[in-house]
Amino acid sequence: MDNETNESAERLLDKINSPADLRRLPVEALPQVCAEIRQFLIESCAVNPGHFASSMGAVELTVALHYVFDTPYDRLVWDVGHQAYGHKILTGRRDRFGSNRTMGGLSGFPTPSESEYDTFTAGHASNSISAALGMAVAARLSGDERKRNVVAIIGDASVSGGLAFEGINNAANTPNNLLIVLNDNDMSIDRNVGSLNSYLAHLTTSPAYNKMRYSLYRTLKKLRLVSDRRRGAILRFNNSLKSLLVHEQNLFEGLNIRYFGPFDGHDVTKIVRVLTDIRDMEGPRLLHLRTVKGKGYEPAELDPAKWHAPGKFDARTGVRDCDRDADKPHKLKYQDVFGRTLLHLAMGDERIVGITAAMPSGTSMNIMQEAMPGRVFDVGISEGHAVTFAGGLAKDGMLPFVAIYSSFLQRAYDSMIHDVAIQNLPVTLCIDRAGLVGEDGMTHHGALDLAYLRTIPNMTVSAPADADTLQRLMATAATGKYGPFAIRYPRGNSDVSKLPDDYAHLTPGRGRILREGSEMNVLTIGTIADETARGIALSGVDALHCDMIFLKPLDEEILRHVARNGRPIVTVEDGTLNGGLGSAVAEWMADHGYAPRMLRLGLPDEYITQGTPAQLKKLCGIDADSIARRLAEFKTDKA
Amino acid sequence: MDNETNESAERLLDKINSPADLRRLPVEALPQVCAEIRQFLIESCAVNPGHFASSMGAVELTVALHYVFDTPYDRLVWDVGHQAYGHKILTGRRDRFGSNRTMGGLSGFPTPSESEYDTFTAGHASNSISAALGMAVAARLSGDERKRNVVAIIGDASVSGGLAFEGINNAANTPNNLLIVLNDNDMSIDRNVGSLNSYLAHLTTSPAYNKMRYSLYRTLKKLRLVSDRRRGAILRFNNSLKSLLVHEQNLFEGLNIRYFGPFDGHDVTKIVRVLTDIRDMEGPRLLHLRTVKGKGYEPAELDPAKWHAPGKFDARTGVRDCDRDADKPHKLKYQDVFGRTLLHLAMGDERIVGITAAMPSGTSMNIMQEAMPGRVFDVGISEGHAVTFAGGLAKDGMLPFVAIYSSFLQRAYDSMIHDVAIQNLPVTLCIDRAGLVGEDGMTHHGALDLAYLRTIPNMTVSAPADADTLQRLMATAATGKYGPFAIRYPRGNSDVSKLPDDYAHLTPGRGRILREGSEMNVLTIGTIADETARGIALSGVDALHCDMIFLKPLDEEILRHVARNGRPIVTVEDGTLNGGLGSAVAEWMADHGYAPRMLRLGLPDEYITQGTPAQLKKLCGIDADSIARRLAEFKTDKA
Repeated sequence: MDNETNESAERLLDKINSPADLRRLPVEALPQVCAEIRQFLIESCAVNPGHFASSMGAVELTVALHYVFDTPYDRLVWDVGHQAYGHKILTGRRDRFGSNRTMGGLSGFPTPSESEYDTFTAGHASNSISAALGMAVAARLSGDERKRNVVAIIGDASVSGGLAFEGINNAANTPNNLLIVLNDNDMSIDRNVGSLNSYLAHLTTSPAYNKMRYSLYRTLKKLRLVSDRRRGAILRFNNSLKSLLVHEQNLFEGLNIRYFGPFDGHDVTKIVRVLTDIRDMEGPRLLHLRTVKGKGYEPAELDPAKWHAPGKFDARTGVRDCDRDADKPHKLKYQDVFGRTLLHLAMGDERIVGITAAMPSGTSMNIMQEAMPGRVFDVGISEGHAVTFAGGLAKDGMLPFVAIYSSFLQRAYDSMIHDVAIQNLPVTLCIDRAGLVGEDGMTHHGALDLAYLRTIPNMTVSAPADADTLQRLMATAATGKYGPFAIRYPRGNSDVSKLPDDYAHLTPGRGRILREGSEMNVLTIGTIADETARGIALSGVDALHCDMIFLKPLDEEILRHVARNGRPIVTVEDGTLNGGLGSAVAEWMADHGYAPRMLRLGLPDEYITQGTPAQLKKLCGIDADSIARRLAEFKTDKA
Repeated sequence: MDNETNESAERLLDKINSPADLRRLPVEALPQVCAEIRQFLIESCAVNPGHFASSMGAVELTVALHYVFDTPYDRLVWDVGHQAYGHKILTGRRDRFGSNRTMGGLSGFPTPSESEYDTFTAGHASNSISAALGMAVAARLSGDERKRNVVAIIGDASVSGGLAFEGINNAANTPNNLLIVLNDNDMSIDRNVGSLNSYLAHLTTSPAYNKMRYSLYRTLKKLRLVSDRRRGAILRFNNSLKSLLVHEQNLFEGLNIRYFGPFDGHDVTKIVRVLTDIRDMEGPRLLHLRTVKGKGYEPAELDPAKWHAPGKFDARTGVRDCDRDADKPHKLKYQDVFGRTLLHLAMGDERIVGITAAMPSGTSMNIMQEAMPGRVFDVGISEGHAVTFAGGLAKDGMLPFVAIYSSFLQRAYDSMIHDVAIQNLPVTLCIDRAGLVGEDGMTHHGALDLAYLRTIPNMTVSAPADADTLQRLMATAATGKYGPFAIRYPRGNSDVSKLPDDYAHLTPGRGRILREGSEMNVLTIGTIADETARGIALSGVDALHCDMIFLKPLDEEILRHVARNGRPIVTVEDGTLNGGLGSAVAEWMADHGYAPRMLRLGLPDEYITQGTPAQLKKLCGIDADSIARRLAEFKTDKA
């Protein structure tokens, strides 16, 4: 919390414009580099918010990896990428780091189009091992003579995802030299859960076997009794060591991944030594590092979940802007509306249970969790399991509410189809971070949900335009009468500062007219109704405006009405134009023999960049100004 | 292979109309019941084809489970369900078993709408643990006083899927009494792969620890030194036992799942005893049974992959109809065209590699695998990993071809979006079993692929109408010029009996006119072109018929042509109407200011039953007769 490091005249960091510069330093200089990176991160993230605590915890391992490996020739594959700020700072992006997560600036995640050091897309958990295995196999198959090293860096939360397990399971029976670095801080965004996590904790508290093994290995290596390159020799070493030290079989070794650790993930010199030792070994290996999320900044160490993405803060006092503003009057977030409504419904119906996939605070599932811990299940990063587990609960009489971010729910597409909808089970999907999420950018936009949900038979698909409708949709779904029921809503503030407490049921397939008008029909779904209403007002077009509420079933009464009044039809949605509301309306018109003039506004068929939500709506032409302009043009264009 | 059992006057099976009847028999009678079930399966599957070998291997465990557990009050959750024929026979469906997999008959998979004994949808691997955990938690939360038992029965292939791992990982930190029965036959449909599999094999070859532990447990229980119901006591038992027998830590116990086994899965008396012992224990448990796929029918034991779904066969001689007919002239299957084309392309380009998720023979990836074993990767049941792994390979210069069945690719939806398409990587998805698959029914139809693929930015989406086009599409994708490239085609015979050997490239976004016509425009994608062409001929309508080849990008030249000629437009596809070709065409017309009369033919928004492909096309109105009728009606209906 003090800036002394920064005030010293000579900052090593200023001379590091690439990992090659880092590698020219003596190993003794690395602790200072780490301290400087921490200070840089504190100062930078205080004014330009980002994923702070994860990157603070990964400073030493980042420095050590770039020091030992020949990046970018060697490949570092970061999982999720919250922890990769240090990596960005060391790989020529220090000067631009102030633009992190802003439109046109650096991405908050490793992004291959941004830098050759960013080897693979990150953002969705658990993909690093599979991707890195692909790279390791590619290196081998292409006859790479320099023997490229490939390293996946994955957190203990991400490693519990099914995709990571599939990667580990496959890594062991495919010839490769993959190194997996397990960054174990016992946290995902919130505190970590799951049996694998307990297992890792156990490894840490009883490390005697592993430490002895590693020491013995170093001794044997010095005596030239083991060799790194000859696989046979290594195998003999492993076997004989096991017969010496048969205390425990390691889980990873059970799966044929050689295990090293746990080591202190903040001892950079030690990590460099270990990495150097195991760098050239053949076969898949796992290095287990214990780290502290938020390391080096006391407020973050004390409450790492709060400091995962703290927003702006005062670097000296550790006071976050959001803490300071907590008492100011403010709108309720949609997340608060969800969380408080769920608790209310659950208090009235014992069948209601909550499920979150490692996002209790992000989704506000923690509101019910704190009040009813026995009825909320944090299943860890495992969206597929979350939905299938909900299917099992619903099959035997419960009413599960599953809250998952829109882009992560893509992971559970088949679970929705095969484990919920086929039996028409009353599972309610509360789909958070729908539409344009803003600064998290292209991997995180909830752009596809309306389109992919619509393909699933039996699924009711809805999106509230306001807090009151969100409450009513949840109350409707909680009847259990309608089978699988999806409700998607965005991140951030709703239209109310006080919970509406309106639990009156809605009728699936019935929308509402927000505004009558005689020149045009405008149909919207979800919170984009607000921009649209303002756009209509700005445009001067006298438009009928319907909030469809339900994408499926569609309100056929409204559709028949707008088809028969003969006026042009405009659809507006904050989802992809390939298969969403505009598509459904076009289908319906075609199927029912109507041929209206149509204009479909929504997200283009491309990966959308980062920026503020307002900037991105403008970019996609669905902000009030753009809508106004498009309506006015559409009105005059009679073609 | 002999029918002696059947010829004895008294068949026990004839008196078993529900598991309650089974439970009235003395345990000594169970081996005879097993023998009778086997005989029944042989005779039935010989004339009415089905998934034979898996069910033969699971006879004893099926009988033992229904004998020990109070089904249907206790829940059996079968994974995949290929192994559940014995279960169907014991649960009141023996007499109807001859209708298995036919339209209106029994489903080939456990199906809750068919029987209360079928507790959950099965068909896609690895969901049983998550679903069963949901049921176990539901029983606990609803204050069930009878202490319902929930059992998931999963094969060693399915347990390697990420969803199963997520379920196991979550089972251990959620209070529950789940029993997982691991049916370990070392096979999926083909021989099994992966490190977990090696691990299981190792457990089997060194079972001393586990056997000792189980014997000791029985002894201690007799001496009343351990109790099943008091969790504390059990835990102490486990701990003390471990300190007695610290040879190995079991992988499952590392994850807090108590492990029992391996036991001989064909010793029904023994399984009954073990199940009785562990039935009322608290906490999650895993029982590991070693079985032989195809057990009891020698030809199937010798080649279980061939006998997974053998088709009709002569029960006495073990000759399959398909073996007998192998020399008759026949059409090439699309799978053969795929496999042979891939090998041809791979011979000409070292960058091409093949990936299959446990389906080398089903997809015909085995053709390349046999010729180039080092360049084909069978990653096991792990579709997400298959696609992300392909992303890593493609990122570092390879050209992966991933062959996955359409409905299973739903598991990899996010991997396609996040790990392939976002970087525009040249991964070719060869999507097998697209459209209506026939007898496998509602879990297996490839109904959604066109719709869900179209939502993914950068994805080229194509479907060949014939073998020649499949070859040319594969050759086009193999250039690597077009980024992610999806090619979907059905199961079964193509139009040719000799490989066309036509590798001329196609242009994405360019279709072709199959027939000129002046009354109507008919647009199709994929092999439904054939039914459609016959439908047009039958209808007497003089229709232009375009094979679009590409759903994305669409052929805008064709669309402009048909929009401008002012004639009605008909689309035909063998995929869902919610978001597929008809939807894309309707969108394009709306977006470009055209308002043609349209008729969209395709699959309805519902789960489609089983039957022959011909029956199902008729049911969905996309067989030649239905198409002819719809065209004729549409022509005359000017509304």
